[in-house]
Amino acid sequence: MSGTVYLVGAGPGAADLLTLRAARLLGQADLILHDALVTDEILALAPRARKLNVGKRAGRPSTDQAFISRLLVRAARRHKVVVRLKGGDPMLFGRAQEEIDALTAAGTPFEIVSGISAGFAAAADLAQSLTERHIARSVAFVTPAVARGDKADDAWAEAAAAADTACIYMGKGDAARIRDALIARGVAPGRPAVLVEGASRGGVVAGGTLQDLPSLAAQSGDGPALLLIGEAFAEAAIRHANAEASTARRA
Amino acid sequence: MSGTVYLVGAGPGAADLLTLRAARLLGQADLILHDALVTDEILALAPRARKLNVGKRAGRPSTDQAFISRLLVRAARRHKVVVRLKGGDPMLFGRAQEEIDALTAAGTPFEIVSGISAGFAAAADLAQSLTERHIARSVAFVTPAVARGDKADDAWAEAAAAADTACIYMGKGDAARIRDALIARGVAPGRPAVLVEGASRGGVVAGGTLQDLPSLAAQSGDGPALLLIGEAFAEAAIRHANAEASTARRA
Repeated sequence: MSGTVYLVGAGPGAADLLTLRAARLLGQADLILHDALVTDEILALAPRARKLNVGKRAGRPSTDQAFISRLLVRAARRHKVVVRLKGGDPMLFGRAQEEIDALTAAGTPFEIVSGISAGFAAAADLAQSLTERHIARSVAFVTPAVARGDKADDAWAEAAAAADTACIYMGKGDAARIRDALIARGVAPGRPAVLVEGASRGGVVAGGTLQDLPSLAAQSGDGPALLLIGEAFAEAAIRHANAEASTARRA
Repeated sequence: MSGTVYLVGAGPGAADLLTLRAARLLGQADLILHDALVTDEILALAPRARKLNVGKRAGRPSTDQAFISRLLVRAARRHKVVVRLKGGDPMLFGRAQEEIDALTAAGTPFEIVSGISAGFAAAADLAQSLTERHIARSVAFVTPAVARGDKADDAWAEAAAAADTACIYMGKGDAARIRDALIARGVAPGRPAVLVEGASRGGVVAGGTLQDLPSLAAQSGDGPALLLIGEAFAEAAIRHANAEASTARRA
């Protein structure tokens, strides 16, 4: 007999942006393995669960991915409802496949519960659609970040340069490299760019152009941030183009 | 005095994939203007609201977009909580910007509530991440569909061809054109492709390759479908590559 592992998206941060299904499963959970960015407010939805932080914390390396996968398989042998809680949606930049493959190989029952990815929450904060008639009909979600031990390259930049709207995850620390890679692929240095930190939680918003990307990144704090680049963000970039970073619309 | 208009994502279909915030607002709503694809099960979460279907229905044209925008502005003068309910996420292929611009111009208070977009639900159904270490680090969300009166072109195909994973919305009726546009841009005809119809609701799943796209589309029914193309879907495409279309994992 085995319990079930639920790979659940915790959404962008605001607790009421969890799905009804995710909230129900948190209420039933016996054990939760969560990323570091999942807030206490969200974990409070799981009063009976034991909680284990397996994410990266300031300066300390994250728990080894293979170890997390093994832990999930073992946990399902002892608990009925095991929740693997990941920020945003588990199927976008969440390393979910390695866990899914391990669960499949072990014959452990599992389900995936979608969550709101930060790019959508950032668009909501800015009141700017990722797509817009006559302006943007394609959106690329990319990251320049690679797993430990993997070689960094700029293949991600092809899709970001080709799309009308680029949503760049985990890119704040690589702002100069992102700017250079996109300009090298023909993107205009003056294309509007907006940084949104702490989407859905009233974080920092800074607007400018692709050329300004490093200075936008410098205006943000320690939290995870998203870089949105595209003509659709022309007005939003101007609205948030202050020397001092402004705060999001939904403060 | 004015009420507030909430542009709310209804998610991919399953009612419990609404966010907690969306469900709360539906419970408070006085008036709901919804797309045709929003299910009765979701509308049942709004017992006190008057409901108005402003979406496209079989053969009949959708309500004019400018008319919907005017209706939202007027509705907020008479009702405290007006919900504009859109399938998926309002900020992706939802024509939200035209409504946001009208609400802004009229000085009508509004908020945007994110929803799960179908691409994420399809990935969950297939138990296949949109991104995968060493295989896919970029995802493009595109549509070949254009608004009435707009000229069709294949600019959307640039981003779909450049990304490791392409999620194509509203493309089922243009399968041959999509195949040709991607192959013309250098995508291998043998790249894995999966069609997911009715994501999150146990709809049809059909797998094959980019070359097979028209035959995958022919296996689906009347519902909205998503086309997922990329090496990450190699196993999913084989798993669902039957002459008879299979049903989704979450039936």
